Amino acid sequence: MRLFRFGPEGEEKPGVELQDGTALDVSAFGQDYDEDFFAGDGVRKLGAWLEQHKDNCPVVEGEFRFGPVVKRPSKLICIGLNYAKHAAESGMDVPKEPVVFFKATSSITGPNDPVIIPRGSEKTDWEVELAVVIGKKASYVNKEEAMDYVAGYALHNDYSERAYQLERGGQWVRGKSCDTFAPLGPYLVTADEKLDPHHLNLWLKVNGETLQNSNTSDFIFDIPTVISHLSEFMTLLPGDVISTGTPAGVGLGFQPPRYLKAGDVVELGIEGLGSSRQEAVAYKAK
Amino acid sequence: MRLFRFGPEGEEKPGVELQDGTALDVSAFGQDYDEDFFAGDGVRKLGAWLEQHKDNCPVVEGEFRFGPVVKRPSKLICIGLNYAKHAAESGMDVPKEPVVFFKATSSITGPNDPVIIPRGSEKTDWEVELAVVIGKKASYVNKEEAMDYVAGYALHNDYSERAYQLERGGQWVRGKSCDTFAPLGPYLVTADEKLDPHHLNLWLKVNGETLQNSNTSDFIFDIPTVISHLSEFMTLLPGDVISTGTPAGVGLGFQPPRYLKAGDVVELGIEGLGSSRQEAVAYKAK
Repeated sequence: MRLFRFGPEGEEKPGVELQDGTALDVSAFGQDYDEDFFAGDGVRKLGAWLEQHKDNCPVVEGEFRFGPVVKRPSKLICIGLNYAKHAAESGMDVPKEPVVFFKATSSITGPNDPVIIPRGSEKTDWEVELAVVIGKKASYVNKEEAMDYVAGYALHNDYSERAYQLERGGQWVRGKSCDTFAPLGPYLVTADEKLDPHHLNLWLKVNGETLQNSNTSDFIFDIPTVISHLSEFMTLLPGDVISTGTPAGVGLGFQPPRYLKAGDVVELGIEGLGSSRQEAVAYKAK
Repeated sequence: MRLFRFGPEGEEKPGVELQDGTALDVSAFGQDYDEDFFAGDGVRKLGAWLEQHKDNCPVVEGEFRFGPVVKRPSKLICIGLNYAKHAAESGMDVPKEPVVFFKATSSITGPNDPVIIPRGSEKTDWEVELAVVIGKKASYVNKEEAMDYVAGYALHNDYSERAYQLERGGQWVRGKSCDTFAPLGPYLVTADEKLDPHHLNLWLKVNGETLQNSNTSDFIFDIPTVISHLSEFMTLLPGDVISTGTPAGVGLGFQPPRYLKAGDVVELGIEGLGSSRQEAVAYKAK
């Protein structure tokens, strides 16, 4: 299934896009796409429910806002430097183990919402990434069984403020957690769909110019390795999001570096998972 | 007020300890201590409700388990190296800005629950810390107004696996996020109580021997500075927990280092916030 969430921020409803492209409001199923949904085998149950009820579900038509594909996961975990070329452009060695960091879940936003350049920021950067959504509680999971813990896949832009991340000492989290720095979606494509997550093209453009263009077959650490590794250090909960790293072509990697300014338009996509678009806007006090 | 949560894991109920030490079950108020509670001015409303209803609240008696004082915050943010002596024992410079890292919220546990030594771990370490719970949404908050955003204070033990944190490359988060690595409580003492968070003794013992013994007056960065700083990089949500760093005396700082083994008992406390006790146990597959 292709799941999505739609509606104003904080009031999103769950939807399903059918194979013919029809977008259905599945609020009547009674669950949003959150931890309880995934923990309770919601993907399978929703599929079965839909067989019976799809003719009665309202069609979502006209202009609407896509929300983030998952409602408030407990964690948004990212893997750094997971494509060899990106590690090189960042001036870092290819890691021996996955590099793990967190983004605040308060940074999660809809896939086409504006990205807010933080107050005074001059180094806001982009990172197209394949995100994996966890389907059930995972602790000390072997590589061989790791894919059983995947609920599905989504497009993610791991926005990063490079001065906050790299130039002020300490850990990366400050440069990764600003509001709107994690547009997630438009779709959560469930793991039962025909989609090989290790052979997907992914790309990103700024103002129409293609800057990232790669394939997940270039992963240094594949998805089973990442899930198994993470589950050694923490329990992954249903709905948790793991972003698998970005390929070469981020702003930091250019000579001189290129960063976003208000008015810039970022577009990105992953084969089979749809595309998203963020316009950069300056921070304004509310 | 002194808030607490009690009952089996995952089924905790909210409680209030009165000035005379009576522990009341305040489930009838209708809200647990979560983001919605704090966002909706719950502390004040609960206080007012209690005036009317305390004679009808059941007394919590006998043996009971304390749960974590906050239910599933969106973030558990920690400040590293915030006491000068601890920075020195860790062999690190006194930072110019707060060192910020996250723990997974799945590491949060009750204050007297056992601490599980991760599978194969040999370097599980302790860190007594003062935790600050955020009372309302905070973004770009000035130091001068930062204390208005505090809901209250609690005792926290920021358990850390030093090999995972420091010896395997990458960020600290892997060594900070293991299950049971964040016993939080027993009490959330609300900010309206007479308690100066910048002049509190805090201590920690292992098997009866005092290893940490300091005062929050030794903070490098005080609470307003920390809140203001964090709110520049991310939006703090009601119920979010900020742990303010640990004083000297962690296992890593000894020559040779001292780490926990199964059977060790860790006891800790902060003046006015109560004490907690964790017995170290070996990991067992469930």
